[in-house]
Amino acid sequence: MYKIAFDVNGNDNGVTAAVLASCKFLINNEDFEIILIGDKDEITKALTKVKNQPKNLKIIDNPNMPSDVKNIHKSLRENTSMNEAINLVANRKADAVLSSGDSGAYLASATFKIKRLPGINRAAFMPIMPTIVGRKFLLLDVGANIETKSEYLVEWAKVANVYARALLNIIKPRVSIINIGTEDYKGLEAVKVANEILKNDFTINYVGYVEPRTILEGVADVAVIDGYGGNLVLKSLEGAILSFKKLIKNKIMSKTIRKIGYLFLKGSFKDVAETLDYRNVGAAWVIGLNGVCIKSHGSSDEKAYTGALNQIKLALKKNILNSVKKELGVDDE
Amino acid sequence: MYKIAFDVNGNDNGVTAAVLASCKFLINNEDFEIILIGDKDEITKALTKVKNQPKNLKIIDNPNMPSDVKNIHKSLRENTSMNEAINLVANRKADAVLSSGDSGAYLASATFKIKRLPGINRAAFMPIMPTIVGRKFLLLDVGANIETKSEYLVEWAKVANVYARALLNIIKPRVSIINIGTEDYKGLEAVKVANEILKNDFTINYVGYVEPRTILEGVADVAVIDGYGGNLVLKSLEGAILSFKKLIKNKIMSKTIRKIGYLFLKGSFKDVAETLDYRNVGAAWVIGLNGVCIKSHGSSDEKAYTGALNQIKLALKKNILNSVKKELGVDDE
Repeated sequence: MYKIAFDVNGNDNGVTAAVLASCKFLINNEDFEIILIGDKDEITKALTKVKNQPKNLKIIDNPNMPSDVKNIHKSLRENTSMNEAINLVANRKADAVLSSGDSGAYLASATFKIKRLPGINRAAFMPIMPTIVGRKFLLLDVGANIETKSEYLVEWAKVANVYARALLNIIKPRVSIINIGTEDYKGLEAVKVANEILKNDFTINYVGYVEPRTILEGVADVAVIDGYGGNLVLKSLEGAILSFKKLIKNKIMSKTIRKIGYLFLKGSFKDVAETLDYRNVGAAWVIGLNGVCIKSHGSSDEKAYTGALNQIKLALKKNILNSVKKELGVDDE
Repeated sequence: MYKIAFDVNGNDNGVTAAVLASCKFLINNEDFEIILIGDKDEITKALTKVKNQPKNLKIIDNPNMPSDVKNIHKSLRENTSMNEAINLVANRKADAVLSSGDSGAYLASATFKIKRLPGINRAAFMPIMPTIVGRKFLLLDVGANIETKSEYLVEWAKVANVYARALLNIIKPRVSIINIGTEDYKGLEAVKVANEILKNDFTINYVGYVEPRTILEGVADVAVIDGYGGNLVLKSLEGAILSFKKLIKNKIMSKTIRKIGYLFLKGSFKDVAETLDYRNVGAAWVIGLNGVCIKSHGSSDEKAYTGALNQIKLALKKNILNSVKKELGVDDE
């Protein structure tokens, strides 16, 4: 039985989406148990909406949120639903943890309690990103680290390589570094050093630099970048797509004849939305820790949570943590 | 008479686009002179295609390109068309310089020959960016500087503020810093320091941090960022829009019924392309120097060059350099 600790506090829209996604997931996956940690009254209320109640759903009552997310040291020590969920994994009472809570508090707490893997200097946030050619890629770091050293980039490349094999089902993932140019001499010092190290690492199918201009075309399976740059890239890509959608909608709705044409084309827009919908992937992995750890958006809906739960399922069934440890040469307990 | 020095070498597709754009521009702007610097034979050949020959077109024969763009020190001293064009501005024989050559060589040479303005530590690349609401904004730096200090950001904000007034015709431009979050405590140290300084600078209408997620919605008129981050943002925005366009086209062309609908909708796609077409703005300013200096893409077409020439026209007619000097408290000669 695989056990998932699910901190259901911290979603801007309440617990309902988390509860519904969990119930559906459990009905379809009888070898999983989900432990919901949150306000029991709210969870129970949300459960009344579910016709088909799964048997492997547990509830731990803990309505507490971090009192000050900017004060990481304080929130580490508080009895919050987030900390309780993380503790279940740290104490090997659950196999994976999922939360929509504050990213900074989650990262700090998970790192502190679950610990980093030997040989890993920093944990990183890693979403699975869509491309226009259907395949997906792993982007990291998207904001766990503001200042990034070359060794972090190399370590993340190694770990993400294993994740790509398991989650994207690719034997030799194309691992790249996102940079401001494709020439070797361009970019930050840390990037150039990491580039040289990865070029000489024959355990990884390293394809060199890629530019953010082509990243949605499916040119790489893993794209490594510092957390500051990665966050800018992620938000720029999301922003451009959202803005473009809005613009095209406005232009179509500005004339009747176009509205008619839209009826014929609706399907294409749906296809596009589906292809580039971040909710299909749902979440960002926290990688580099000695545990399976994933973070969902604070505004996740049922579809986003279902995506996250399915990712966890894949990671656990493929025993991803073990593969990462093997790659890093770490003895498993 | 305003004089523009135009280095026409360095375009991937030859000199034709530059020559055609120059001729058309001069026909419509009789108070301008353009000095084309490049391979005279090629220029003369391109001129044979022009029916309506302008009188204020000069040619300086110089077919030389930098021998090694990575060796900045060497290319500074070479007799290239780029250096000759820059020298014309440095020696006050032209009022503005335009080139499609290598960005690094151009920046180094322009900085070395034209010199930085007093009080400015670094020059920056600044394109005028489109938004989905029709208005435009200035984005800087997009790659002149890899490592950026807080004072650079503040200086760029001041200079770009003046450019926004002149080029975008806005009395009190909304000046922002692009950051990975809107909360004061987020981001690089240099960004946080610059944020505090700009908050207390009442000569600027500083609106605080903006995220790249909303930047195409027209939330700011000036968006300042370090050169590394700015380059990533620029290329991510461009890339996402190009990829999105490609995807939607593929989805439409996949079914006959959709192709029919497309006929009704064509106009909207054209409107969208026009709104977000970077060629309408055409180029990136090099700001912070004691001269009017602009850089076009290496693959610029006639439309892109026309955009660049029209920007130069606006800058010269509004005497932008003088306004920048006033803002910086620099005495004009």
